[in-house]
Amino acid sequence: MSELSRATGVPVATVKYYLREGLLPAGRATGATQAQYDESHVTRLRLARSIVQVGGLSVAAARDVLAALDTSDRSLHRVLGAAHYALAPQVAHEHDPTRARELASAWGWRVHPEAPALRQLEHALTALDDVGAPATDERLARYAGLAHQIAEVDVADVPTTSTEEAATTVVIGTVLWEPVLLALRRLAQEAVSAELHDHV
Amino acid sequence: MSELSRATGVPVATVKYYLREGLLPAGRATGATQAQYDESHVTRLRLARSIVQVGGLSVAAARDVLAALDTSDRSLHRVLGAAHYALAPQVAHEHDPTRARELASAWGWRVHPEAPALRQLEHALTALDDVGAPATDERLARYAGLAHQIAEVDVADVPTTSTEEAATTVVIGTVLWEPVLLALRRLAQEAVSAELHDHV
Repeated sequence: MSELSRATGVPVATVKYYLREGLLPAGRATGATQAQYDESHVTRLRLARSIVQVGGLSVAAARDVLAALDTSDRSLHRVLGAAHYALAPQVAHEHDPTRARELASAWGWRVHPEAPALRQLEHALTALDDVGAPATDERLARYAGLAHQIAEVDVADVPTTSTEEAATTVVIGTVLWEPVLLALRRLAQEAVSAELHDHV
Repeated sequence: MSELSRATGVPVATVKYYLREGLLPAGRATGATQAQYDESHVTRLRLARSIVQVGGLSVAAARDVLAALDTSDRSLHRVLGAAHYALAPQVAHEHDPTRARELASAWGWRVHPEAPALRQLEHALTALDDVGAPATDERLARYAGLAHQIAEVDVADVPTTSTEEAATTVVIGTVLWEPVLLALRRLAQEAVSAELHDHV
């Protein structure tokens, strides 16, 4: 276990905690107090830590996401569904995501009517209504067009060689690329604003 | 105060809390236990609640963001800077954002070398390195191109009529459109994956 900690930079106490919480499978027991870990443990431990620390997920949510990697049916579409479901922000379920469903349908997007991201979108749209700055269909359509291009980049990046790798890529793409996208958007806003500033 | 609560749907206890924490300016005192609130209080209260509930900010962080709306220099560029700084996720400052700076410069983006989003990006890139799935320059460049187009939509949406409205739009665009973008990306991933699934 100390070698596992050294290889990943994750403190031994955290490794123990993740083992206890089921984020990391047990090693092969080689004695009463000894166990052997292999390369797959190193990979899984790094993934678990990143999901918790960068993705900001609770340990329970991280366990659900990692469990999606271990299901028998690991087609891209299934794993994506499982990962999105497990990774969905906890959004109050008070309203049906009516407008979000209509929008997705208007754009020709085939999504499950209970997809958690629909509630996520509906919740965000309601918040914009509440502050008196409702999202216009036009701005949403432009965002949707760009989001679709981002998704094409994401899906093209999923390897087709092994389902294990595909599943891992989907989880990483969902959890760890979201902060990349948000950081890039903020930097781009500053850059665009600087360009305008110069010309005013 | 009960009218303010009725107009916004925010419970009286929350209104009191926001007043105490400085998220909402005091009303005009009309008696020992009475104060008058106007339309600007309604707007500000809705914005404060959305930043906390949808943006997921702490009350202290929300106060900093709202304070940016009240500064005397409210050029778009200044307000954007103040909002981004206040809204930056708390990222450990252990490393200089060297790679993030180089990327922004390679894309021709003029951003402040201490912009919080650079650290946000560097942190996310390090997390991808840690899980053994480093971001390639090619994928980052494609993301950056799309993020720039999103930022153009955002900046075009900022009204030039009044600095108060411009500042409010910037805060809303930063905090409340991020969840919209993330939800759209997940829905688009499902749609793109469904298209592929059909053809396999």
